[in-house]
Amino acid sequence: MATSFYQKLTEHFKSIYHLQHLQAIVGWDQATQMPAGGNEARSNALSELAITIHQAYKLSALDEWFDCAAEESLDIPQQQSLTEMRHQWQQATMLPAELVRAKSIAGNRCEHAWREQRRNNNWEGFKPLLKEVVTLSREEANIRASMTGMLPYDALLDQYEPEMTQQRLDQLFLPMNQWLPELISEVQAHQKSWQRLKPGHYDAAAQKRVGLKIMEYLGFDFNHGRLDVSVHPFCGGVAEDVRITTRYESDDFSRSLMGIVHETGHARYEQNLPQQWRTLPVGQARSMGIHESQSLFFEMQLAKQPSFLQQILPWLREELVPELSLTQLCQHYLKVEPSYIRIDADEVTYPAHILLRYQIERDLISGAIEVDDIPQMWDELMQKYLGLSTAGNYRDGCMQDIHWTDGSFGYFPSYTLGAMYAAQFMASMQKTVNIENAIQGGDLTPISTWLSDNIWSKGSLLTTDELVRQATGETLNPQYFREHLRNRYLN
Amino acid sequence: MATSFYQKLTEHFKSIYHLQHLQAIVGWDQATQMPAGGNEARSNALSELAITIHQAYKLSALDEWFDCAAEESLDIPQQQSLTEMRHQWQQATMLPAELVRAKSIAGNRCEHAWREQRRNNNWEGFKPLLKEVVTLSREEANIRASMTGMLPYDALLDQYEPEMTQQRLDQLFLPMNQWLPELISEVQAHQKSWQRLKPGHYDAAAQKRVGLKIMEYLGFDFNHGRLDVSVHPFCGGVAEDVRITTRYESDDFSRSLMGIVHETGHARYEQNLPQQWRTLPVGQARSMGIHESQSLFFEMQLAKQPSFLQQILPWLREELVPELSLTQLCQHYLKVEPSYIRIDADEVTYPAHILLRYQIERDLISGAIEVDDIPQMWDELMQKYLGLSTAGNYRDGCMQDIHWTDGSFGYFPSYTLGAMYAAQFMASMQKTVNIENAIQGGDLTPISTWLSDNIWSKGSLLTTDELVRQATGETLNPQYFREHLRNRYLN
Ligand SMILES: [Zn+2]
Ligand SMILES: [Zn+2]
Repeated sequence: MATSFYQKLTEHFKSIYHLQHLQAIVGWDQATQMPAGGNEARSNALSELAITIHQAYKLSALDEWFDCAAEESLDIPQQQSLTEMRHQWQQATMLPAELVRAKSIAGNRCEHAWREQRRNNNWEGFKPLLKEVVTLSREEANIRASMTGMLPYDALLDQYEPEMTQQRLDQLFLPMNQWLPELISEVQAHQKSWQRLKPGHYDAAAQKRVGLKIMEYLGFDFNHGRLDVSVHPFCGGVAEDVRITTRYESDDFSRSLMGIVHETGHARYEQNLPQQWRTLPVGQARSMGIHESQSLFFEMQLAKQPSFLQQILPWLREELVPELSLTQLCQHYLKVEPSYIRIDADEVTYPAHILLRYQIERDLISGAIEVDDIPQMWDELMQKYLGLSTAGNYRDGCMQDIHWTDGSFGYFPSYTLGAMYAAQFMASMQKTVNIENAIQGGDLTPISTWLSDNIWSKGSLLTTDELVRQATGETLNPQYFREHLRNRYLN
Repeated sequence: MATSFYQKLTEHFKSIYHLQHLQAIVGWDQATQMPAGGNEARSNALSELAITIHQAYKLSALDEWFDCAAEESLDIPQQQSLTEMRHQWQQATMLPAELVRAKSIAGNRCEHAWREQRRNNNWEGFKPLLKEVVTLSREEANIRASMTGMLPYDALLDQYEPEMTQQRLDQLFLPMNQWLPELISEVQAHQKSWQRLKPGHYDAAAQKRVGLKIMEYLGFDFNHGRLDVSVHPFCGGVAEDVRITTRYESDDFSRSLMGIVHETGHARYEQNLPQQWRTLPVGQARSMGIHESQSLFFEMQLAKQPSFLQQILPWLREELVPELSLTQLCQHYLKVEPSYIRIDADEVTYPAHILLRYQIERDLISGAIEVDDIPQMWDELMQKYLGLSTAGNYRDGCMQDIHWTDGSFGYFPSYTLGAMYAAQFMASMQKTVNIENAIQGGDLTPISTWLSDNIWSKGSLLTTDELVRQATGETLNPQYFREHLRNRYLN
């Protein structure tokens, strides 16, 4: 029997999957193991690999294979698999090579300069570099738009959140500018007497031992993954071998610990993607927002529950703070306080940081504002949402994130979409799973099973909306997130 | 100006170099970091990469580029660079794809079964698998011979030791069967009262601290490399980022320590290959024998000198054995004792292990003997050289090594060639460098400088014979090795 075109495609995408494996492991090595002197050779090797992978996507026969496969009789999962292959292929080949190169050069230049310029609060130096990136990103958005029939910003979103649009994001996010500042004030009043833990001195090895215990409790599969150290924590590697990282701070154990919980959420999703579809796009994670929903489910929905903190308290006492009380730990992890820096923000103020970035990047791509307008808009929105001014303080304002420096516009919304999905999943899970029982019993299997059945095992076999609808009975409804915050922080 | 064909070739080989970088780092990860569950996906990814690299060698234009480049006006280093590119290209493309695949399958099967069969001393089970590998290796040798005009065994040697031949090896190695057994007996008589250290209990972290100190003393560049742990120690990674490994044994610090010295020798060669030619075959190590000469120079010529052991003694006392004396350490490291296992052999008996393997594999490839004859020949030669019988003891006899299981015939001679080169380099270095002074002064720079000037910086810019002649005034002369052993062990 002749090989079908669908089979030819799956073989080809399997080869690409294997090459991406190398990319993931070598990238992980670069962040965790590589001595500094190896960086130039490593960058060259990774560029060569990127070219090799790009060439695989550019295989001229693919056009015909996709057309012919669409005529073949395929079952439903195969049809979705074909859709996902085509989406990945289009994403990888949509832009002209010159634009990709120009954007990569401008992005590298801007990101490189930014590291120093941010330290020096040097907005004037940074501005022309960012302008170049924005110009190229607008060009990119327009090309993506014309290729897909989407609006420009939607076409950027499509890389991270297929089917998400500016129109939906406006509906999902903009109402927050009404209720969120108010909620933050209420919570602050409610928590007036609360205190965070004072800095101490904590051994990295002890922090790691506690982290490993928590990973085990959360079901991380150490036969298919590991925990290491990197400057910027991430979840990398491949589904068969997930590499999560953290950074141990000597004066604060709490960030690393909750970071490990967060990355473990990402990791469990990866480790439990559908085996049968592993080497194909349809077997991969649904979207960045769904990915973040899993890390935030573990971090926010599970680990910040007092009952969960109660479970890990003995390990913290044994290894790190002998006198630690549950009240101290809860207040530390649940204390809400407006601050300048997104990555340090608590669960309640975090969406404000995203909301303002969303509004700015949306208007930047549409041309409604220019790079010169960013600091003022940033300052206004920070004052409005969090009561903090960033006038003249670029370092802790619009220069704090790496995302825009290399033109990753459309990414920021995923963080808050993830928080919203996570809250909705929890609301649904609670109907059939006794979550407190599972946590207090020290066996999270019922929770994992729900996530595995409803999210992890689905890979990209369903659209995001359909995934969420099957799991929760409706598509994304931001009400659950709002209710979660009110329930947790005002009771 | 049009790109020359030589330039086209260098660009193409640079791409291959970058892909080989990935191979080296991902291979290192597999041996040192990867959890067991990641192995299947890793093997698939590495196969895909091997295919990608093979396709790069098979680029159809290369034929023409090599022909045209040979007509271009090139300076001497470029001519040698062209020679080395052509050699690497021919090595990579000489065999028909079916033979490569058949050999890979038979090799994997034999190697895999061997791990269990060796444990069970199961020669009868192993024999048919090895026969298959030998049959395919003979076929390989014949094809390589017909493609190169060499004799079959020489064509296998050519992969590891370009220009080395069976005829030269007979001249270099066979005389040892006269003088070596005699020397071993004399040394044993001389060392009658010597004792090795008794097993103790040694912390891995402490062993590592001493190992790192010694690496630093030996000039290892930690900006371009690292030390890790693997089951089978090796020197891997890339010249810009050399990854050496060791294995800490809890009852014996001495093996790991000397292993680190050995791998550091390999590493310094890699780290100091000519920068200018780094991405091309001509910038790579000259041969396996020259590589081994550098590790053995560090291990045997330097580190087993009493003056060197005197230097590291304080670190050993501080971290591992407070009461250790120099005499104990010297006797431990220099004690000569015939034994069954090659990798445990001392400096004097080691060549006997190689000599017997060389004779067997040479005759196996020529067809003078068959797989069935190996155990008897092994037993006879072991008795003759080391006075030990392996009759019925396959595990500690002809089944002890991995090399033949995947058909790496022609590799074993490199070990003793390396020892011979190292002795000759030392004899030559002593004419201009005060080695004892350098060791006792704690600054090995004069030694490194000699090695860098004469060996490391040459890459493959000279043939092996020319490299050795320029460094020592003559081509390989086994007399230096014999004299080194007599001087060291009978004085
Ligand atoms: Zn995350
Ligand atoms: Zn070696």
